[in-house]
Amino acid sequence: MSKGRLEAFSDGVIAIIITIMVLEMKAPHGALPSDLGPVIPSFLSYVLSFVFLGIYWNNHHHLLHATERINGKVLWANLHLLFWLSLTVFVTGWLGEHHSAAVPTAVYGVVLFMAAVAYTILVRTLLAAQGPKSRLAAAIGSDFKGNLSLALYASAILLAFVNQWISDAIYVVVVLMWLVPDRRIESRLS
Amino acid sequence: MSKGRLEAFSDGVIAIIITIMVLEMKAPHGALPSDLGPVIPSFLSYVLSFVFLGIYWNNHHHLLHATERINGKVLWANLHLLFWLSLTVFVTGWLGEHHSAAVPTAVYGVVLFMAAVAYTILVRTLLAAQGPKSRLAAAIGSDFKGNLSLALYASAILLAFVNQWISDAIYVVVVLMWLVPDRRIESRLS
Amino acid sequence: MSKGRLEAFSDGVIAIIITIMVLEMKAPHGALPSDLGPVIPSFLSYVLSFVFLGIYWNNHHHLLHATERINGKVLWANLHLLFWLSLTVFVTGWLGEHHSAAVPTAVYGVVLFMAAVAYTILVRTLLAAQGPKSRLAAAIGSDFKGNLSLALYASAILLAFVNQWISDAIYVVVVLMWLVPDRRIESRLS
Amino acid sequence: MSKGRLEAFSDGVIAIIITIMVLEMKAPHGALPSDLGPVIPSFLSYVLSFVFLGIYWNNHHHLLHATERINGKVLWANLHLLFWLSLTVFVTGWLGEHHSAAVPTAVYGVVLFMAAVAYTILVRTLLAAQGPKSRLAAAIGSDFKGNLSLALYASAILLAFVNQWISDAIYVVVVLMWLVPDRRIESRLS
Repeated sequence: MSKGRLEAFSDGVIAIIITIMVLEMKAPHGALPSDLGPVIPSFLSYVLSFVFLGIYWNNHHHLLHATERINGKVLWANLHLLFWLSLTVFVTGWLGEHHSAAVPTAVYGVVLFMAAVAYTILVRTLLAAQGPKSRLAAAIGSDFKGNLSLALYASAILLAFVNQWISDAIYVVVVLMWLVPDRRIESRLS
Repeated sequence: MSKGRLEAFSDGVIAIIITIMVLEMKAPHGALPSDLGPVIPSFLSYVLSFVFLGIYWNNHHHLLHATERINGKVLWANLHLLFWLSLTVFVTGWLGEHHSAAVPTAVYGVVLFMAAVAYTILVRTLLAAQGPKSRLAAAIGSDFKGNLSLALYASAILLAFVNQWISDAIYVVVVLMWLVPDRRIESRLS
Repeated sequence: MSKGRLEAFSDGVIAIIITIMVLEMKAPHGALPSDLGPVIPSFLSYVLSFVFLGIYWNNHHHLLHATERINGKVLWANLHLLFWLSLTVFVTGWLGEHHSAAVPTAVYGVVLFMAAVAYTILVRTLLAAQGPKSRLAAAIGSDFKGNLSLALYASAILLAFVNQWISDAIYVVVVLMWLVPDRRIESRLS
Repeated sequence: MSKGRLEAFSDGVIAIIITIMVLEMKAPHGALPSDLGPVIPSFLSYVLSFVFLGIYWNNHHHLLHATERINGKVLWANLHLLFWLSLTVFVTGWLGEHHSAAVPTAVYGVVLFMAAVAYTILVRTLLAAQGPKSRLAAAIGSDFKGNLSLALYASAILLAFVNQWISDAIYVVVVLMWLVPDRRIESRLS
């Protein structure tokens, strides 16, 4: 079973997701400066999701680079991750149109939460496929940043019903936390 | 003629199909929890089609991995399969909007049926291109699961006019049946 | 300069064109058998364009397989071809909605004509890049089928204003003529 | 870290951007020759953006060809470029519908300006990753054409509020200036 084709397929799907999201930013009907106003929330939610997907692509890249063996379970764990990532198109569009509402903000968090869960499952499936004492296991270590992200997403989902700006702030914090590349893997293998 | 470019093109098309299907899930106009209600059938039909396409990608992956030679007929048999798979975008969108109607449920089954027929034709075209006693022929064996799927799809198309829930149940059964990777090939070649 | 990246980019663009065309087939608003009626012309124009793009992908595949050297002019001749192919999305959608009108039928032919011209330019640019006595020049020979296609497209554009069914018939004839793979190249190089 | 996967991902994103832009050209509701009139500005803005993206793909191709080492910063500088390129879908659609208005013309220029800035950042990040006396540094030399483009874009953004045709002319001039491939790199490395 070929790691190359798994990487190529994942790259393809992430590239498409990251790009078709821009179709959710509808061109304004008018042509005045004021017509750009309603586009700003759509633009910001696009930026946020673009960076999230960039982080996933980046980490996925590092993760598979450190991987030596894949199997059928890995293919499905990977498709599961791509499924949740694909839903960012839907929630980014919805959040962009209703940025000051609790439900779209919370649902955005649910998709991020589930994508993070799917990534964790993918990591574990890959570790199981490598066998003990693998290069990947040594590189991964404890997943502190992953667990912290899950906790932050869960808080953001609940806090969206208090004040959606808190949730938005949390999403930005998680993004900043991950913009630093995954040095656990990079430092050991690059 | 290059197997790599055929795989890359197929991966590209399947990656695009699986991703643009999400555009058929329209963001709700409102932002209340109740606005998510009408999205649920679209979401479920998206999940179903995503898994179907994942299965096709997975089996296509195994199939070509076991293939040694391709020719012009294989290219067209492959495009024929991609054609029917691309129609899942259309039927998934239609089924999502009219999940309790007979015709969209039956037409969904027709597309799955034709995709399964196209896959069978692709397998036979590949076998013919390999010549007798090929590694692929040994790996494929009898195609019990493929034939059973065709029979189940045919029943689902007819039963949609009795009760569309029966057809939906059949689609789920076929998905579950295939989620087990194609061990015929995997066990012999991996 | 890398032939592999040119092939991969072309495959990507053609894969996207062939797939997003399906988005022009809008899911019907109703769910009765009669609601499928208006979709039929869209479906048929989708089938026609799908096969046209499949032929271009197939011939492009053979053409570059026989190519040894590319340069900057080849990149632009290739982008020029991809440009006209991308317009099939627009004309397929328009023709599907107005299949019995002269102008969309003629404009469809204009795009096919220009794509054929662009393919001819690409072939000549590639031949110039190979130098005399190349493997490609020997494989191409005279381009009878290409010239005949150009003449047929030109007739179809004019005849659309007489009766658009004649043009549709011509488009189908050209498709059938090309479904036979380009044996000029295949027979010499495969 | 793999240069191949960075190239493949960039090719994928640029291929998708260049192709989904065509979805912004909506099929006319009528089928008369006069119905094509309103499509012409959309068509011209599509042509302009297609050529711009073709230039970026072409130069990106040359740039990475000359690159020997990439790192995490390069991945993000590259994603930053792809972000601004993806926004061409939005501004091309908007400009096509309001070609005689100042704001869409200026915003189109802003996106081109930012893409050029992002390309400059990518070049510098790549140079830093190569270390001194690299093959890439020798090939790049001074970036006169890049700096001139930035100045021209800035003028076009301001002049759009005087007369948007001046800005359109400037965009065409920049395109023509770049259609000549980047000989700085090509002449030294090809």
